[in-house]
Amino acid sequence: MLGLDPDPARLWPSAAESALGATVAAKAADAVERHCCALIDSAGQSCVAIKPQLACFERLGSAGREALQSVVLHARAAGLIVLADGKRGDIDVSAASYCQSLVGSTKTPYGSVDGLGADAFTVNPYLGIDTLDVFADGARAVGAGIFVLVRTSNPGAADLQDLQLADGGTLCERVASIVDRLAGDGELSDVGAVVGATEPGHLARMRELMPRSIFLLPGVGAQGGTVEQLAPAFEPGKAAGLVSASRSIVFASEELGGDPADAAHRAAESLRETAWGLS
Amino acid sequence: MLGLDPDPARLWPSAAESALGATVAAKAADAVERHCCALIDSAGQSCVAIKPQLACFERLGSAGREALQSVVLHARAAGLIVLADGKRGDIDVSAASYCQSLVGSTKTPYGSVDGLGADAFTVNPYLGIDTLDVFADGARAVGAGIFVLVRTSNPGAADLQDLQLADGGTLCERVASIVDRLAGDGELSDVGAVVGATEPGHLARMRELMPRSIFLLPGVGAQGGTVEQLAPAFEPGKAAGLVSASRSIVFASEELGGDPADAAHRAAESLRETAWGLS
Repeated sequence: MLGLDPDPARLWPSAAESALGATVAAKAADAVERHCCALIDSAGQSCVAIKPQLACFERLGSAGREALQSVVLHARAAGLIVLADGKRGDIDVSAASYCQSLVGSTKTPYGSVDGLGADAFTVNPYLGIDTLDVFADGARAVGAGIFVLVRTSNPGAADLQDLQLADGGTLCERVASIVDRLAGDGELSDVGAVVGATEPGHLARMRELMPRSIFLLPGVGAQGGTVEQLAPAFEPGKAAGLVSASRSIVFASEELGGDPADAAHRAAESLRETAWGLS
Repeated sequence: MLGLDPDPARLWPSAAESALGATVAAKAADAVERHCCALIDSAGQSCVAIKPQLACFERLGSAGREALQSVVLHARAAGLIVLADGKRGDIDVSAASYCQSLVGSTKTPYGSVDGLGADAFTVNPYLGIDTLDVFADGARAVGAGIFVLVRTSNPGAADLQDLQLADGGTLCERVASIVDRLAGDGELSDVGAVVGATEPGHLARMRELMPRSIFLLPGVGAQGGTVEQLAPAFEPGKAAGLVSASRSIVFASEELGGDPADAAHRAAESLRETAWGLS
């Protein structure tokens, strides 16, 4: 899975130099869009999905949202799944509004307004099961899915997620059990889990608690995780793990040399082969 | 504090009927903007701040972001503080990107792109202290603040937030201690806490753990909380609690009768007097 976290100050030169726009925001958003589309063109064929980081687009205002929309359309035209990474968490009508924004549509007196058109999005469990129910139901109603943050890839993840609970287990294990209940019966579920690749020691336990959930595995590459350690995630089958990499692909030319697009293609292909070999 | 959660299907008739726009999204966003600005004009003088729910604007795409920007400018021109309610939570560069989007600006090769221009925003603690540090530092650097979700107002809040920890206390008490450390010394801090008004039993304990934080108190009115129960929040002084109400003000005419704007003014003024009387 190709992570898209575009920093307007660090785009591929071909995108930055050809950008057009009447305002600073429009020009920066155009550069971001060109960069992401070029990245999809070069590395997309080695991936099953893109994962745009919503914050990176939101910071460019309405022009950023237009760019995000164009990138989503470009990815879908290339046959890629789109996973909107916004880590949303909110209550009742607000959670439903995020579903409308990311995977659904909004009814208005003037007609319906389409949302982003993503296939799935990431959500935060801190607000409780009633909020996860709204996200899961809202996504399911339009054939989309959610990925719940269970054990994240950052160093501070342990602060809360690894706390021991008085009645046994850790907080992230409790969240894993909640995710498994939401996942329901059947084989792979539309309720997935975010499990960081930086702490592979957690993976086997997480797979035990969530046998039917697709795992989104961030943290490979720049954050220090390696694909070789991720085998437990793939136990239910090839489709059970989505290995996400961003910086190690987009900036591959800094290590591998050559043109950024060629290097991104080679890095993505190498990651694909390694992940496929595990499963 | 005036919560702005505009539903395009349920706006004041004066806003819905006068909306203009070349597309459905543009017309709906124009209606939302007119509605929010009219609400600010009628009820704003009884409030110190507005709290736009970002999901409600995001679902209208780029036009929704333009509307949100206009509402923020309108509120600031009326002398109101703007608290962007997005409950964001993410790691390192992504957390920094949300700071740029909501309270800061983004450097690009073409110049700087201003963010939304809010004074503060809400954040989710699940990802850990390193992520809260980025939010707090990013906000502080531009004179803004954050409100960390500690104990929310929804029924499912208890699922995780009230879990007993093996080494004592509950999860939300642990988060409260983290917020207090972030708050630093001095009197009222730029690191506040979201503490739901629907469970007033928690308030005294939360105030004990976070003596310097401003409390954002959602859940009054439609969610069932009452202002009279909130006295512990105001112990440090009048400015220590921000009582947030949305539906009970915007739809006040359904209960009080009369014009929506007049009823909103009366409902907001009544809430202000009650809250002021407590502090």
